[in-house]
Amino acid sequence: MSGFNFQPIGYLATPFADKFGIPRQPNLAPHAQGVLKLLSPYNRAEAVRGLEAFSHVWLTFVFHQSASDWKPTVRPPRLGGNTRIGVFASRSPFRPNPIGLSLVELIKIDTDSGVALTFKGIDLVDGTPILDIKPYIPYAESIPTARGGFAGSPPPELAVIFSPEAESRLKPELRALIEDVLKQDPRPAYANDAERIYGVRLYQYDVKWRCDGQTTYVIALEKVA
Amino acid sequence: MSGFNFQPIGYLATPFADKFGIPRQPNLAPHAQGVLKLLSPYNRAEAVRGLEAFSHVWLTFVFHQSASDWKPTVRPPRLGGNTRIGVFASRSPFRPNPIGLSLVELIKIDTDSGVALTFKGIDLVDGTPILDIKPYIPYAESIPTARGGFAGSPPPELAVIFSPEAESRLKPELRALIEDVLKQDPRPAYANDAERIYGVRLYQYDVKWRCDGQTTYVIALEKVA
Repeated sequence: MSGFNFQPIGYLATPFADKFGIPRQPNLAPHAQGVLKLLSPYNRAEAVRGLEAFSHVWLTFVFHQSASDWKPTVRPPRLGGNTRIGVFASRSPFRPNPIGLSLVELIKIDTDSGVALTFKGIDLVDGTPILDIKPYIPYAESIPTARGGFAGSPPPELAVIFSPEAESRLKPELRALIEDVLKQDPRPAYANDAERIYGVRLYQYDVKWRCDGQTTYVIALEKVA
Repeated sequence: MSGFNFQPIGYLATPFADKFGIPRQPNLAPHAQGVLKLLSPYNRAEAVRGLEAFSHVWLTFVFHQSASDWKPTVRPPRLGGNTRIGVFASRSPFRPNPIGLSLVELIKIDTDSGVALTFKGIDLVDGTPILDIKPYIPYAESIPTARGGFAGSPPPELAVIFSPEAESRLKPELRALIEDVLKQDPRPAYANDAERIYGVRLYQYDVKWRCDGQTTYVIALEKVA
């Protein structure tokens, strides 16, 4: 059987240096911005003409950091990590074709030198290969009454408290991003050790935190060399 | 630059033998049903376990009948066929990576022998290669307030009138499908000849019709040998 070969149209720059800590759906972290620079020959202003009339776009991307093998079932974090459901009933990266879909808000189009698009609500790791951009069509794609199975409502959010030391070193935008990310509780579902210190890397910062299951405490912030 | 190679997980059987006449977005033709049989090794019941909890799914597919060359701009039928917009501001099949997205309603899961999924609201040509199935997540993907550019509202619908002869030969389901398809006015945007007779093939029927721009008249129905 013959396959289909696709080339990236660009790579997305995001705050998420590692997979750990990334929100599990788009739009959960409104302060997470990403920039997509289109590659030649796609980086022509005409290719995005009219895109400014759409507030949201679909990014079709490749889960390039995930292992290439798939299994028929996966264990979604939303189900506590110990219930198996079919891979096609999930948005897991470990799928037969590791293609992802992310619905993001388009906030800037820059065509001064090539094409750079800025999005917010990003849930993708830095350097993700993008295969396509499509406008979101609300009359066809907004179905508020759809049944959403185990993902029928947004995940609960935790309170996030910053240590005075961390607080003092934070610019407001970075503080908001850290809050967005940590209130989603990125800990593995099976972990519940209130003393354990986790680290998540955002831009060039290592953020250290612990969580008692209701509240997340940001302990320290370290700049990576 | 290295690319990414993907294999079909199955091919979608649909009423649309040809591209001409296919609704230009999913869910415009609720009577258009499609059946996806998963190929080995994906055709195991576990792979779709839990999918029944979702009412809608995304199909990621390949525009396999479209020419492989792309252009930076396209002329969407919705804009009358003579306004050029960027390919990334459109859902045109003629894109750098000919990947399509279709949001369809899941109405049946059959795992008695392999896996067969039945959808309605299909807008894909018979035999379309499917790369992925993902559940629709309404809390993240239903954004009714999104700005939808030139596709901000559903296209207007025409009245459809059947000739007595055509009417007499139609089962109700096929009649409803023909009405779904023709009320979308599938004529090329630049055509406006009320006398011209068009044909669209649905299942094994050639449907003959003409349109004066407000009303479509179904003239005849011919079974293809």
